[in-house]
Amino acid sequence: MHNAITLIPVAGIGEVGVGDSLHDAVLTGLQALPEDQRLRDGDVLVVTQKIVSKAEGRIVAIDHHDPKAKKALVLSLSRRILRERGELLIVETEHGFVCANAGVDLSNVDEGTAALLPKDPDKSAWRLKNGLARSCGVNVGVLISDTFGRAWRNGVCDVAIGGAGIKPILDLRGTTDANGRTLEATEVCIVDELCAAAELVMGKATGVPVAIIRGCPSSWFGDGSVVGDVVRAPEGDLFR
Amino acid sequence: MHNAITLIPVAGIGEVGVGDSLHDAVLTGLQALPEDQRLRDGDVLVVTQKIVSKAEGRIVAIDHHDPKAKKALVLSLSRRILRERGELLIVETEHGFVCANAGVDLSNVDEGTAALLPKDPDKSAWRLKNGLARSCGVNVGVLISDTFGRAWRNGVCDVAIGGAGIKPILDLRGTTDANGRTLEATEVCIVDELCAAAELVMGKATGVPVAIIRGCPSSWFGDGSVVGDVVRAPEGDLFR
Repeated sequence: MHNAITLIPVAGIGEVGVGDSLHDAVLTGLQALPEDQRLRDGDVLVVTQKIVSKAEGRIVAIDHHDPKAKKALVLSLSRRILRERGELLIVETEHGFVCANAGVDLSNVDEGTAALLPKDPDKSAWRLKNGLARSCGVNVGVLISDTFGRAWRNGVCDVAIGGAGIKPILDLRGTTDANGRTLEATEVCIVDELCAAAELVMGKATGVPVAIIRGCPSSWFGDGSVVGDVVRAPEGDLFR
Repeated sequence: MHNAITLIPVAGIGEVGVGDSLHDAVLTGLQALPEDQRLRDGDVLVVTQKIVSKAEGRIVAIDHHDPKAKKALVLSLSRRILRERGELLIVETEHGFVCANAGVDLSNVDEGTAALLPKDPDKSAWRLKNGLARSCGVNVGVLISDTFGRAWRNGVCDVAIGGAGIKPILDLRGTTDANGRTLEATEVCIVDELCAAAELVMGKATGVPVAIIRGCPSSWFGDGSVVGDVVRAPEGDLFR
């Protein structure tokens, strides 16, 4: 694990419209990259939720200035409310994610509309992974990222909401540290770290909704579900 | 912000003993890098808490098999307990960080000892930054990282506990999205994203306690305190 990892922004994707092919939009961006940055086997492709949601038609009409309508929309997408303050609702989504306003997003969408989280973000990731295997002949991991706030710390960070071909949690329990002792509590959520890393080259306002992460160890690739593996079961959660 | 970012692992630092110079240990690793990877202006250097704590002598004797002694140690380092389950305490540390067992670390230390968090991790970062400016003539950002669990999501991720020369929170409020509308809720905690990214090339068991992040936009550099800017004030926190 001593090799460098490179984060490559994929610009040139342009606007993704409702119902557009996510695969074709991403491919356009990939083809515009310089030759040496083109997608290849062993890369991880990180795609922001926004363009996935648009392509999948997860857009609804909403009056941005009507707090009641916004709240009703959030509740319709939630399994439970954890906290409420003013217009901010911290909820558990249908998938089990805990986030603000059920991930309903009012920026980078047309006025009078909102983008909802993909219905099944793992499936969205698999669809793109399989599409790229067919069109480009590459075997890559795919992650869908979104921007979540956190408890206890200011500022937002990108995390994974869906994935394909990457083990979400790297289980180091049972391996030993540099002193030969067994490591404790070391299940690393590499998909969240990968999405956080990808955000560094995407930014929020720069029109870069995709990034390639190059140089990941082969041991990170494999099966697993972000929704299934990363969402902490409510009954085991001390903060729900 | 459309340039690639590279994450470079810094191996070859070897064991850092109690009271060793952090600067000299890091420098040894930096000098072992291939010429084109050597530290340069505009890089961000991420250093794991463990070697900072060791160098600063933040090591105490503790019987790893005595739960009472471990709990007493954790409490002595905490301002308050948020949750308790079995041997796990989620506390607010003296700095204000919310984490498991006040950051007391029993792995990668000698048997019978524990590593505590640095007393003032921002100051630790500034000391290293200034030392590298003197010895290498470089102007870099420095972050101290640690591995924290999170509410609601399985697995741990690295976050920043100290920093020097980097603005912890990138404030995008007031900037506009691709549709010209003002972005909401977009204070990005780039120092946590940078530490998460760095972890990808460090791993937990591989003896790589330092990474260089190359290619960060110049706008990220500046003043700020991780403890001051990233720790959410308890009175504004919905989960404390």
